[in-house]
Amino acid sequence: MSDILHRVGIKSTLDDVYERLTTRDGLAAWWTRDTQGDGNVGGVLQFRFLNGGFDMKVLELHPAKRVLWQVVDGPEEWMGTKVSFELKQEGDWTIILFKHQGWKEPVEFMYHCSTKWGTFLMSLKSLLETGTGASYPNDVVIGNWN
Amino acid sequence: MSDILHRVGIKSTLDDVYERLTTRDGLAAWWTRDTQGDGNVGGVLQFRFLNGGFDMKVLELHPAKRVLWQVVDGPEEWMGTKVSFELKQEGDWTIILFKHQGWKEPVEFMYHCSTKWGTFLMSLKSLLETGTGASYPNDVVIGNWN
Repeated sequence: MSDILHRVGIKSTLDDVYERLTTRDGLAAWWTRDTQGDGNVGGVLQFRFLNGGFDMKVLELHPAKRVLWQVVDGPEEWMGTKVSFELKQEGDWTIILFKHQGWKEPVEFMYHCSTKWGTFLMSLKSLLETGTGASYPNDVVIGNWN
Repeated sequence: MSDILHRVGIKSTLDDVYERLTTRDGLAAWWTRDTQGDGNVGGVLQFRFLNGGFDMKVLELHPAKRVLWQVVDGPEEWMGTKVSFELKQEGDWTIILFKHQGWKEPVEFMYHCSTKWGTFLMSLKSLLETGTGASYPNDVVIGNWN
């Protein structure tokens, strides 16, 4: 099993970061504008991009602390994997520890998704610090698989 | 064992990307301006930042194809780990498959380094596509551990 890991520090409050991770409008502003569904525990969020997307079941929500999703529809490599965001405060920074866990094999698509998650987390950082994120379709191009 | 993985596509030639991965001037333009040492196989490159840095022994150099380093001095978590860049062409893109392998534990510093490698690879992409990279000390700030 392999995991994608990231750590990003944001000059913002725990509550504001948590809000962008748990509301449709928040998620739409840094990941993909086409975010639909039910963000409550047990609900399913639908994230869509040009060629499909991901359905995430919300497994855990701990306000200002932790969000856990599980992929219930999407590319085969993502099926059953889990995505978590752990939040903590250090000085005037909110630190996000991100993990996308449960990949069966370190396939090339995992390399791509690792870089892409990094740029989307930087989009979340930008959203909170400057008011403007770079959610799909205005996301940062990282290559021919963008 | 855990690995950091990234995939970045660059609108450039294999030779030009390889040159930026294997020469002092190339490395200084996207990773850290304070790059010293011997970049030949068996040599050691010294990469320095504000609070220390990394010494990398060059284990393999396959022109336009692959670069492999091993960390021989630096933070404890990096000691003995290996960093590789695999290059391949897809259409008018050069694809880099990056791996930083051999981490003993997925410590918080590994989360940080994963994101940081992503932004430095985007700096390499920018260097080749626009002529300007974001090497230390002009690197992208990703948080309080920057």
